[in-house]
Amino acid sequence: MTESGLGAVVDLLRASPLDMGGDPRAMRLVFDEMIASHPVPEDVRTTAERLGGVPALAVTAGDAEPSGTVLYFHGGGYALGSAAASVNLAADIARRSRTTVHTVEYRLAPENPFPAAVDDALAAYRGLLERGVPAETITVSGESAGGGLALALLVALKESELPQPAAAVVLSPWADLTQSGRSHRTKAAVDPALTRRALTVRADDYLAGADPRSPLASPLFADLRGLPPLLVQAGTYEVLLDDALRLAAKAADDDVAVTLRTFPGAPHVFQGFAAVVAEGARALDDVAAFLRTHLDGR
Amino acid sequence: MTESGLGAVVDLLRASPLDMGGDPRAMRLVFDEMIASHPVPEDVRTTAERLGGVPALAVTAGDAEPSGTVLYFHGGGYALGSAAASVNLAADIARRSRTTVHTVEYRLAPENPFPAAVDDALAAYRGLLERGVPAETITVSGESAGGGLALALLVALKESELPQPAAAVVLSPWADLTQSGRSHRTKAAVDPALTRRALTVRADDYLAGADPRSPLASPLFADLRGLPPLLVQAGTYEVLLDDALRLAAKAADDDVAVTLRTFPGAPHVFQGFAAVVAEGARALDDVAAFLRTHLDGR
Repeated sequence: MTESGLGAVVDLLRASPLDMGGDPRAMRLVFDEMIASHPVPEDVRTTAERLGGVPALAVTAGDAEPSGTVLYFHGGGYALGSAAASVNLAADIARRSRTTVHTVEYRLAPENPFPAAVDDALAAYRGLLERGVPAETITVSGESAGGGLALALLVALKESELPQPAAAVVLSPWADLTQSGRSHRTKAAVDPALTRRALTVRADDYLAGADPRSPLASPLFADLRGLPPLLVQAGTYEVLLDDALRLAAKAADDDVAVTLRTFPGAPHVFQGFAAVVAEGARALDDVAAFLRTHLDGR
Repeated sequence: MTESGLGAVVDLLRASPLDMGGDPRAMRLVFDEMIASHPVPEDVRTTAERLGGVPALAVTAGDAEPSGTVLYFHGGGYALGSAAASVNLAADIARRSRTTVHTVEYRLAPENPFPAAVDDALAAYRGLLERGVPAETITVSGESAGGGLALALLVALKESELPQPAAAVVLSPWADLTQSGRSHRTKAAVDPALTRRALTVRADDYLAGADPRSPLASPLFADLRGLPPLLVQAGTYEVLLDDALRLAAKAADDDVAVTLRTFPGAPHVFQGFAAVVAEGARALDDVAAFLRTHLDGR
């Protein structure tokens, strides 16, 4: 595990057949195969479940008795990805933070456009509460579109007058479906994974005519007052860097306790490569420490 | 030490006779008295010294043998404050991070306008190198104007082709002497310590006709490529919040490893009240952990 692993991951992503703006039915196969190409370690246990009627996988890993819950939302532009393909990253978080991670099989576009994913996220959170899980033992998290969805859930909780979780962690969040960040210009040449064009295709599919500035679609434009402590991580080699930066700034302006961390030269959701990249492992250690601080009420 | 200590500090600051935009000769007395009103704990040792010809105080505290160096720059709008009055905060950092903190008596405006402070900061850093202190065992830090000065030093190091330190920590940095941050508008009603008017007076005194967008006066406008890992902390009840947010964003855009933390309801440089405010103590623990991570090469 070396620093230079980051360059290898950038090269790998650049050579990948995945086109995030491609036909979703074809790209779902490529996406799941790429994400799931690392075998799941033997200490990982997954249990299929339903949370508020929404399918999910409960994931634990390691020897320690888990305490605390992470409600997790995978990435994939609201069109690709699955709970199953997210098990490796979910398990990495579960192991390091000694939590149970519930990765949610929310409905995808274009078949199920906005606000289906938000409805599913809210139903899954309600499902945890209905099981008797106290809100202060729950955290929410997600990567890329799943990071945006985790934030949208927090905004939806305010509207529903449900209690906020203890904390939230978003990795390379897609928080602005209008693609107005300046990193779409400044980081286009160095981002090996995403393009503004691809994100525009995915946003159009997901929104299906809804306003891209809707706070539940683009939480960057939401009133974020009352949100719990928020950890935002991003690489500096991504066109979505500015989504992370502006989200942190908006949340701070709205009096939220924000921690932002940026990783030089790291691509989109580099935490998924924690097994081979030192920065990814460090970033997930940081995630785990943040989750434990807030789950333990420190 | 309670959460509600934050409200008491806000009230205290609001009732303070300090006018940051007032006559510097009168306000220096008020500022030093306010800052130095807490007695220095008995375990604090200070040694007067010169670093590259610039007066400074070497501060250590606690029982542990210190390792690693912090070059520290006090706040006060480049017109107020002193190394002596900064000993309490410097000692708090020294104790928690097990370092030696050198707090620099840089020259103040209006008597010594820009770039006198930057020249002194650079001379003090050179002085450490000339003593044989390796750059990788040095960190730089500062609060408010001292945070801006610490950043200006890093930019000056690039221009001088001197090695960067291991890391930098800036608390509520004043990084934009044009006062263009939107928090000057959005946070004016809740900031108990600073006003845009006062900062404009201090900037005019310091700049004495120099361009307020000069990278060495307003590091927000500098090319920040090549800077070491940077921790930025700010309260959300300060007109300078946006200086912190935009600095973090600019540094991230320039591929710097940035950690930003915001503290809801906290005023300007609330870390100075760590003895009575839980958030201040937590913030300084965070500073210490960050310094040790980078001094220990983790």
